[in-house]
Amino acid sequence: MKPATPAVTHETAEIDLDRLRTDLEALAKIGGNLEHGGVDRPSFSDADMDARRWLMGRMAEGGLMPHMDAAGNVIGRWGAGDGPAVMIGSHLDSVPRGGVLDGTLGVIAGLECVRTMMSFGFTPTCPIEVVATSEEEGRFGGMLGSQALTGQVDADWLYAAKDDTGIALVDCMRAQGLSPEDTLRLGRPTDSIRAFLELHIEQGPVLDRKQIPVGIVEGISGVFHWSVTLKGQANHAGTTPMEMRNDAFLALADFAHTIPDIIDKAGGGHSRLTIGKVTMEPGFAHTVPGLVEFSLVGKDLDNAVMERLRVACRSGVETAGNAHGVASSIEEISWLRSQPCHPDIIAAFHRAAGQLGIETMVMPSGAGHDTQVMAAHTRAGMIFVPSVGGISHAPQERTDWNDIALGANVLLHTAMNLTSAPCRG
Amino acid sequence: MKPATPAVTHETAEIDLDRLRTDLEALAKIGGNLEHGGVDRPSFSDADMDARRWLMGRMAEGGLMPHMDAAGNVIGRWGAGDGPAVMIGSHLDSVPRGGVLDGTLGVIAGLECVRTMMSFGFTPTCPIEVVATSEEEGRFGGMLGSQALTGQVDADWLYAAKDDTGIALVDCMRAQGLSPEDTLRLGRPTDSIRAFLELHIEQGPVLDRKQIPVGIVEGISGVFHWSVTLKGQANHAGTTPMEMRNDAFLALADFAHTIPDIIDKAGGGHSRLTIGKVTMEPGFAHTVPGLVEFSLVGKDLDNAVMERLRVACRSGVETAGNAHGVASSIEEISWLRSQPCHPDIIAAFHRAAGQLGIETMVMPSGAGHDTQVMAAHTRAGMIFVPSVGGISHAPQERTDWNDIALGANVLLHTAMNLTSAPCRG
Repeated sequence: MKPATPAVTHETAEIDLDRLRTDLEALAKIGGNLEHGGVDRPSFSDADMDARRWLMGRMAEGGLMPHMDAAGNVIGRWGAGDGPAVMIGSHLDSVPRGGVLDGTLGVIAGLECVRTMMSFGFTPTCPIEVVATSEEEGRFGGMLGSQALTGQVDADWLYAAKDDTGIALVDCMRAQGLSPEDTLRLGRPTDSIRAFLELHIEQGPVLDRKQIPVGIVEGISGVFHWSVTLKGQANHAGTTPMEMRNDAFLALADFAHTIPDIIDKAGGGHSRLTIGKVTMEPGFAHTVPGLVEFSLVGKDLDNAVMERLRVACRSGVETAGNAHGVASSIEEISWLRSQPCHPDIIAAFHRAAGQLGIETMVMPSGAGHDTQVMAAHTRAGMIFVPSVGGISHAPQERTDWNDIALGANVLLHTAMNLTSAPCRG
Repeated sequence: MKPATPAVTHETAEIDLDRLRTDLEALAKIGGNLEHGGVDRPSFSDADMDARRWLMGRMAEGGLMPHMDAAGNVIGRWGAGDGPAVMIGSHLDSVPRGGVLDGTLGVIAGLECVRTMMSFGFTPTCPIEVVATSEEEGRFGGMLGSQALTGQVDADWLYAAKDDTGIALVDCMRAQGLSPEDTLRLGRPTDSIRAFLELHIEQGPVLDRKQIPVGIVEGISGVFHWSVTLKGQANHAGTTPMEMRNDAFLALADFAHTIPDIIDKAGGGHSRLTIGKVTMEPGFAHTVPGLVEFSLVGKDLDNAVMERLRVACRSGVETAGNAHGVASSIEEISWLRSQPCHPDIIAAFHRAAGQLGIETMVMPSGAGHDTQVMAAHTRAGMIFVPSVGGISHAPQERTDWNDIALGANVLLHTAMNLTSAPCRG
């Protein structure tokens, strides 16, 4: 006769860091690059698909019911019945020369949460699904996996999308046995997903500098992306007096110089303005630049602030251009509204961290994540763990294992809290 | 019996604009490009050599004694004896897609001066040489023709010089029957050249804007050329708060913004500072620039001002870098001192213009010219005529024929004044 199982309460549950780490290290080898120490697992590459098949194996070993859908998403379901589920996950694809934690942490932590619940004898009141989305990094310009899950894939876009080298998304998918046609039919009914929880590395320096182990994300920043053209007059750098120039670069410099002031006046603590790319014509040392094109990327968590930044930047570009007799034109390549995380989920993360005595801070996400797509469909939210030195999208991407454990435990207890109470719609 | 020639005095002499124009238009066809309307006559090209041979023909028809030296310079001598000569000229080579007046005007105007002197019965008290220098535009990085005439060719440089496409100068010369070896022995004794006079288009906007037909050049500006590197930290444009960035481009913008202030404080009316070339890494719209390299070209007529600009720019770059936590390093690629024109020649231009009632202004040359090389060897000076719209080094390069006539007449009377008095050493 077996001894009675000692009474465990889920309040004392803790994830098994060794098991989590073993899985993350195994996954890092799939597409792992020995030369740079990171991973090359672009969407729908063989390595990406190998990782998805490996994950299905780990899910099955862990007692989940895995399947891969037509868009390449891997979903492992656990728990009774076919009712609405709480979903936990992130993505498995990587940028070229990426790090080993971006996306993968949220997937494996989701799996580990379920394994921990099982080992502590916790029975959720509704099903839990661990999801590994596909194509989150935007090789083809979207977030295909989470868009497919939530019925947000545009058919025209799907059939036209190409990567930077001109390879078509649909060719890539079909070569891996996936189906663009079925992808358009994957959208889950809204009431089939109760919540979406994502653990991710911060990919920024804030938590690391502040030495806080967990960030609770209040929302994903909106972003506008401009291409600005300044048209002056190319002239000989020796024969053209300063006061007779129409120097397109000095107009850009004057605008860029005012960025801190623009943020002071029109923005806030979460505002970001970045000039990342500049091209000049003719681009000779001895010629006054006649033409400058530059990118401007603006971000904020508050859509009203985004609007104010847009107005202030437009005015700043014009003022700087006028001061140099340089014509300016602005092409708004994209404008994505910010996406708040759901207050229920933010509160659930706070509650779990409070139960565990883990210090947190509330912060925006300046980068895009699956959560922003899921948030249009269900109650979605995410937490961050620190990125050492703020480094991500690089082989040097790293997070202390202690912080990973703290983040995964907040994820675990949040999921348990959400699935302890009788499930509500 | 012929009628007696009416008494002419050289005070009434005027160049024959039709003859000058006919020659310039004939020359424009050699290497002339019907598509863009300019000329392609790079140094030591077939077109360049054709133009030199054509010029020797025109010189011989005009009664001068022409020859081509080992460096490709064409020299047409007129006047008695083998004593020291007054030299008038400029260059015949062009930049790619160049205009039809750059250099050629000074050569043909020199020839026209001699023809006019002959037709007006003027007999100079010392020989006059009309010169068409070679390789002034710097295809191989120097001003080979005038350097050869004045013994300023460095042998190591001569044998190493290549153009942008890797073609060796010596190969180019030999292919046209010229001799690098003999070029090193061309240097004229200082006392064989009494003066050097050059008429050139301004290649800048000043005379055209001020509606003044003739500029008397006080000197050729010195120039420094820097390559500046700013090393910050590449970071995600969304996840990195403004105050945690080391944005190399914003450091550059802050420096560039202070250029007017630097000139106010350390420079003067002839100062020029130009940022013509900027490269950024990684150069993605969504990444804070980690590395910026830019060119800085500084010019002034006064070497003391040049030194002050150098100090102020160095300090400005450092200050802007420090403000952003960005390391700066400056490579001084070149530093060329300014070269004043000779006061005797400046005075002679003033005197001739005064005699003719032609309005002039004194101005620097911001571009390099043969005069700066000749000035190291003899009394040298130059005058400018307006460039319409300040445009040069382009097929649109143009000067009103009236202004050309005025400039050529100032050149003529200056040459006559200098060769009327008994020649002095």
